[in-house]
Amino acid sequence: MQNRIKNLQDKIQGENLDAFFLTNTTNVYFFTNFFSRSAAYLLVFPEGTPIMIVPELEYEEAINTVKNSEIIKLDKSSKLIELVKLKLDVREIRKLGIEDASMSVKSYFDISEKIDFIKLEKASSIIDDLRKTKSEEEIGFLQKACEIADRGMAAAFDILEEGKMEIEIAAEIEYEMRKVGSEAIPFDTIIASGVRSAFPHGVSSKKKLNQGDLIIIDLGAKYKGYCSDMTRSVVLGTPIQKQIDLYNAVLESQQEAIKACRIGIKASEIDKIAREILSKKDLEKFFVHSLGHGVGLDVHEVPSLASVSEDVLEENMVFTIEPGVYIPDFGGVRIEDVIVITKKGVKTLTKTKYSISF
Amino acid sequence: MQNRIKNLQDKIQGENLDAFFLTNTTNVYFFTNFFSRSAAYLLVFPEGTPIMIVPELEYEEAINTVKNSEIIKLDKSSKLIELVKLKLDVREIRKLGIEDASMSVKSYFDISEKIDFIKLEKASSIIDDLRKTKSEEEIGFLQKACEIADRGMAAAFDILEEGKMEIEIAAEIEYEMRKVGSEAIPFDTIIASGVRSAFPHGVSSKKKLNQGDLIIIDLGAKYKGYCSDMTRSVVLGTPIQKQIDLYNAVLESQQEAIKACRIGIKASEIDKIAREILSKKDLEKFFVHSLGHGVGLDVHEVPSLASVSEDVLEENMVFTIEPGVYIPDFGGVRIEDVIVITKKGVKTLTKTKYSISF
Repeated sequence: MQNRIKNLQDKIQGENLDAFFLTNTTNVYFFTNFFSRSAAYLLVFPEGTPIMIVPELEYEEAINTVKNSEIIKLDKSSKLIELVKLKLDVREIRKLGIEDASMSVKSYFDISEKIDFIKLEKASSIIDDLRKTKSEEEIGFLQKACEIADRGMAAAFDILEEGKMEIEIAAEIEYEMRKVGSEAIPFDTIIASGVRSAFPHGVSSKKKLNQGDLIIIDLGAKYKGYCSDMTRSVVLGTPIQKQIDLYNAVLESQQEAIKACRIGIKASEIDKIAREILSKKDLEKFFVHSLGHGVGLDVHEVPSLASVSEDVLEENMVFTIEPGVYIPDFGGVRIEDVIVITKKGVKTLTKTKYSISF
Repeated sequence: MQNRIKNLQDKIQGENLDAFFLTNTTNVYFFTNFFSRSAAYLLVFPEGTPIMIVPELEYEEAINTVKNSEIIKLDKSSKLIELVKLKLDVREIRKLGIEDASMSVKSYFDISEKIDFIKLEKASSIIDDLRKTKSEEEIGFLQKACEIADRGMAAAFDILEEGKMEIEIAAEIEYEMRKVGSEAIPFDTIIASGVRSAFPHGVSSKKKLNQGDLIIIDLGAKYKGYCSDMTRSVVLGTPIQKQIDLYNAVLESQQEAIKACRIGIKASEIDKIAREILSKKDLEKFFVHSLGHGVGLDVHEVPSLASVSEDVLEENMVFTIEPGVYIPDFGGVRIEDVIVITKKGVKTLTKTKYSISF
């Protein structure tokens, strides 16, 4: 934590800001180890101890958790912006960095209007830069979240059965992951079967599984705040040739994309490699989303693996590779793993085997 | 849905806006019945058919669901803001309402800079006004979400046992609610026991339950997108007098607050009534959060029941009443129900009995 504050302070100095005002609770957790369920704010200065402001209802927990900041309680009578104004004024702060990607327009204008001496600087990219490569400890947490996802997928394979509803299977998977240590379910588990598997984001419905259905299973777990995200696609019963061909095309695209990942390559280049393989089979037009996304404290974060991405892969970036092909009125296949870029090459953190049968 | 669009169009005309640009996926669901898992946008004009813009990956689902809007697919090559600019330009739209409470600062400046003829008007309150009182259908969905929460609480009482970890109990409760029809878990289930029950937002940890522990159980379910939120507090084994006194004080505060709710009363007045009862027992200083919040498509929405709230209770508002008292190093009690304001009085949608024993 202390290193993270130091790194942010270096950035604050480098960008000529007078301070940074963090309002995103996930970012506040990243810097303080305290995850607020309501609201928490962190003022970080170019040097010295940061100031954390928490509502009264989380004060007890915050003082038990946070070691690197002065903690101020926001009680019923105190107003956040007036408190912040006071703290900024005594330090003669004029240029204040904010998280433009998550701060609301309402908060922006509230602050601008009530703290008249301040100039707000859009600075989310500073935090993205600090979060986009992971420490050894963070990779350990992500590895653990991926292991739990593997357990969830194993549970799925055990219970897939004709006549069961998609939502029943989702409930069983989430229960299994919670039992083996998932702190929460970072996104609604997707079980999309039959023609519904052609909806890339088709969550889980009351549809019952039928023999011959293509089934997309997309699940994730959370460990120490870090998320996993994995997808497998299978056929219930004996697959037909068209399902097998689709499956093999997506798997080849995914594996070649993973192999191509290395330090220094453009993320857009990896997206292109995955698409070219599907193009050859005339399937690229059915690949309607980007190839992948970073995972960490958020289940979608930097880097972006997309045709329009400007990100370049770096050591210790952790992200998904997840090509998918969705044929309306037939079905879809998506295969997704979480990988980490290391000096020695790519390491895949999700370990569930690849097979159209289960 | 058609009525909701019509009501929004009336507001657009009343506020002299030329159009409204919705970017919050929950609001888009409210007006279209389509819930995007990634992004969806809705342009509503003073009259005529709205335009919905969805990413390619959700296009198939959207055209299967949405009946009241023209649907445009956002593919890899098209840029959202350019598309919106075009649609606004042909209609000569200059004053565009936006959801300032949820739109990010980044999006605001992206739009302002790229659509140079537009003036953005902060207009979240228009949507809040439309969502703050519920239709008969919505109350039905909320009732169902509350019934599922009651089932979850019954499951909790069945499995609370010395030596079990808080997170195990949370997992069991969530599984039970998912099995009986909860589409998702709207917030992490809180099991906070012993001294941890003094943390109002103390989620669930690996702490094991001990005899004599005060235990706060705060859970919710989701049905057709609508959320429930209920809390009960119990003692494992035989309660001591101080626990009983605390419990009775909170219950009295909650019941009196519920009784006081009626059409036309200020929400701040209800908060005050709850506090006064706790004051008499010198417990008000431990009641460190507001009294309640609206529930609907969001688990926290308008109205706010707090000392600083300016909301006034209206027919068909649905909200929680949840006083809580948290004594550091001893424990806490919170009791929470979801209620609806009707012409005939208050109706409580959550039905779990009140008792310190179970």
